[in-house]
Amino acid sequence: MITGKNYIGNVLTSIGNKTFKTFNPQANLQNETVFYEASAIEIDKAVALATAAFKTFQKISGVKKSEFLNEIANQIEALGDQLIDTYCSESGLTKERAIGERGRTIFQLRSFANLVNEGSWVEAVIETADPNRKPIPKVDIRKMLVPLGPVVVFGASNFPLAYSTAGGDTAAALAAGCPVIVKSHPMHAGTGELVAMAVVNAAEKTGMPNGVFSNLNSSGIEVGVALVKHPNVKAVGFTGSIRGGRALYDMAAQRPEPIPVFAEMGSVNPVILLPNAAKSRGGDWAKTYAASITLGSGQFCTNPGLILGIKGTDLSNFIEILSEEILKIEPSCMLHPNIIGAYEANKTKMLAQNGLQTTAFLDKKILKNYGRQIITTVDGATFLENTNLHQEVFGPFSMVVQCQNIAQLEAVISNLEGQLTGTILAENELENYGNIIDTLQNRVGRIIFNGVPTGVEVCSAMVHGGPYPASTDSRFTAVGVNSIKRWVRPFCYQSWPNELLPNELKNENILGISREINGNKTIESL
Amino acid sequence: MITGKNYIGNVLTSIGNKTFKTFNPQANLQNETVFYEASAIEIDKAVALATAAFKTFQKISGVKKSEFLNEIANQIEALGDQLIDTYCSESGLTKERAIGERGRTIFQLRSFANLVNEGSWVEAVIETADPNRKPIPKVDIRKMLVPLGPVVVFGASNFPLAYSTAGGDTAAALAAGCPVIVKSHPMHAGTGELVAMAVVNAAEKTGMPNGVFSNLNSSGIEVGVALVKHPNVKAVGFTGSIRGGRALYDMAAQRPEPIPVFAEMGSVNPVILLPNAAKSRGGDWAKTYAASITLGSGQFCTNPGLILGIKGTDLSNFIEILSEEILKIEPSCMLHPNIIGAYEANKTKMLAQNGLQTTAFLDKKILKNYGRQIITTVDGATFLENTNLHQEVFGPFSMVVQCQNIAQLEAVISNLEGQLTGTILAENELENYGNIIDTLQNRVGRIIFNGVPTGVEVCSAMVHGGPYPASTDSRFTAVGVNSIKRWVRPFCYQSWPNELLPNELKNENILGISREINGNKTIESL
Repeated sequence: MITGKNYIGNVLTSIGNKTFKTFNPQANLQNETVFYEASAIEIDKAVALATAAFKTFQKISGVKKSEFLNEIANQIEALGDQLIDTYCSESGLTKERAIGERGRTIFQLRSFANLVNEGSWVEAVIETADPNRKPIPKVDIRKMLVPLGPVVVFGASNFPLAYSTAGGDTAAALAAGCPVIVKSHPMHAGTGELVAMAVVNAAEKTGMPNGVFSNLNSSGIEVGVALVKHPNVKAVGFTGSIRGGRALYDMAAQRPEPIPVFAEMGSVNPVILLPNAAKSRGGDWAKTYAASITLGSGQFCTNPGLILGIKGTDLSNFIEILSEEILKIEPSCMLHPNIIGAYEANKTKMLAQNGLQTTAFLDKKILKNYGRQIITTVDGATFLENTNLHQEVFGPFSMVVQCQNIAQLEAVISNLEGQLTGTILAENELENYGNIIDTLQNRVGRIIFNGVPTGVEVCSAMVHGGPYPASTDSRFTAVGVNSIKRWVRPFCYQSWPNELLPNELKNENILGISREINGNKTIESL
Repeated sequence: MITGKNYIGNVLTSIGNKTFKTFNPQANLQNETVFYEASAIEIDKAVALATAAFKTFQKISGVKKSEFLNEIANQIEALGDQLIDTYCSESGLTKERAIGERGRTIFQLRSFANLVNEGSWVEAVIETADPNRKPIPKVDIRKMLVPLGPVVVFGASNFPLAYSTAGGDTAAALAAGCPVIVKSHPMHAGTGELVAMAVVNAAEKTGMPNGVFSNLNSSGIEVGVALVKHPNVKAVGFTGSIRGGRALYDMAAQRPEPIPVFAEMGSVNPVILLPNAAKSRGGDWAKTYAASITLGSGQFCTNPGLILGIKGTDLSNFIEILSEEILKIEPSCMLHPNIIGAYEANKTKMLAQNGLQTTAFLDKKILKNYGRQIITTVDGATFLENTNLHQEVFGPFSMVVQCQNIAQLEAVISNLEGQLTGTILAENELENYGNIIDTLQNRVGRIIFNGVPTGVEVCSAMVHGGPYPASTDSRFTAVGVNSIKRWVRPFCYQSWPNELLPNELKNENILGISREINGNKTIESL
């Protein structure tokens, strides 16, 4: 049963008096559960518990942490249809999407469990002493990664499972040894509570300290602001809008002790349709992109919102087919009336820009809260002059920019803000466009050849992040096991007694992890 | 010959009209060379050249970069006595220190040369496609680290060679593939110009693009501000005061596109003298610490400015011997009248704090610009109440805090700001103080057993950095080859044609580097 309360550590409480409900956009009505926004007292309590829990949790073995993470996955699986039904009722997303996203969430948790169970991720480096070194003796120095402290994770509206309560940020932070306080997303607070219950159950079952996880409800910005400004909070994970992410980043940077904010924000994910590809496969790409633009009603951070090509018959054909194809696709439900509202407002603002033309507009009655797809086009010179045209319209919207020539195409790319992804569609011509590729590379975190940017593989090679404003710190990825690096810092022991070192750094390689010893990677003991 | 001009790429210019001179604190007189502060035009030119140079430099092979870095080392060696003499005349430091620091600088350059010549540092990860995977095929994804773009490095007053013009930050950034613009430190502008000449000569000799390096003079804050705010600058390295570092951090965080600032700032480097150690070896430690506190006239970021112990006879004896021993040490010259001025002002402010007592004060006439060592003491309760007592006094100053008991000692440690280092002096008692060690670990980047914090080994296991305000980003180290990680970001290619991938990620392991392929570390080709 969903209680509407906050998990302050292992305990459900609701001492505040601000309440809210979630909304079912498919049914176009409010859901019944009343959620209690976390009060200042509950926020302080959650942080105090996390701070206390950190003292032990930071030193818990990788094996124990992997048990915890795997048990979270088990508990989420055990929620069964209740989770799927709640997810659908709070997001308007389909049951298939819910099941797929649950699978991704569980896969992420188990991936981090494997990572910390194996243990080499701490990057242990040992340099032994050399008392005979001239002019001065060399001391024994040993380094490994250690957790930063309590982390605040903001749930993402568009991924109620995979980037929310026990999503990628939470899994990575717990794997690192950081207690997590989730600022639950108000649009799916019920889904959040169910998942929080799974985490709390797992924590209790595997003997984790109380406070290793809390889940706070909120409908406005106050809870998030209080958390980010709290002196005991040491890092923040966020997925959402540029405005929201930047506000958190600014707040964190202005603290007496600034803390890292890893915000994964907006992106229009430019797609470059090169001339041969437009000529020989333009129609195919148009069909593929009609599907990519409307996938999940365009509510993905990797949605292709910008397609760049060279003006001419081939590009005109591409635009025509893309426009035809996208109108054949049935609209789908968007996450929430607020998301629809923002989509409509941003679309209206975009359509008011000089020089922008609409080539596909679904001119029929559609269901309430569904997203109406739209394709627009503009010429390269206009796009270069007006940065309003560069903004993301979150939803099933895309814009084709018709550049005069390759030089203008390069100028357009180099004037783009930072992006999560860039895609090149090419047909035996890639080697002729080295400058285009180099320019694109400097604006993005991931570059794709002959594909679509939607669909972010959860793997060790993935980079989900990019130059600002795609993310606030391009030096880290938000997807894949390497995202654990956001929540840790290197720490070193000098001349420390072997028996008091953590197992990762003792002479005997008890854990059998890969270590760098005096410059050589090895699994041997010292 | 030192010209006093700026290196804007490979060209010496001096179009501005603001000039300044350096000062010889040993001789207590100005040096002769007139330095020309970089003008706005020169700053823009340097950044424009760096931006253009980045286009090619970011793709230059590790082998070529290693040639460049080794040649910088060669050119610095070739400067011979001129460099040593200029260094001494601009810093008041001894010839032995100059030679030692030159050795460290050259060692750092050659260490980075080795790192990029070998090439595995890019952390190449390859995950191959699996077209048969259900429910959706897996795409080919390959990741490596790539440089961020032009980096600005601020020279450090207290390391005219090792943390200035071609010091650790510059060597790391160039190794990463980032062009560097140095904001030369005004106290050693001549040393800076000589080293800049060495870098420029090396760049020309090894065929690096013009603009890969520039060296700008400045006596105030304007040049630094202009550089940090410049939209084409992508990261900043700084070593210096908390006030200076924080100002740069704030400026960078407030840019439309925020950029990372890696500032290594102040630290008092707490030393915990545990009871048995005080009893059985207090006298030895007192002698050792008298030397560490006065090393380089206390002008090290790792200077032990704070010693914590338990009130009693043993600690009193330690204080007495420390005070006796430190007065036996001959004072040494400080870097500059401004540094002396700040030392005197901070000391005066500290001595005015209630409850602070002076136990050693060198009460004899000393040479102009020399630093007068001083030992103070205060009780734990007073220290806890007054955060003014926590501040760094940059110079040969230290404070012994006499705590009432272990609980108060732990409270003192946990109330400290972030530190570069923490040291534990113990004698068969370390295992009894787990809480003290844990608490200390959470405040520092490096923990030392029975040693002194001064002396920072340049090695792969070193962590020089720590929780704020020791540094602005504890997730990175400023010393050792891993400091290259500050200037890079992960970047990934999806389904990219093999022949167009960088060599690090091609199927054939042309470079013979260590790579992760489908989860396994290997040097094999695919």
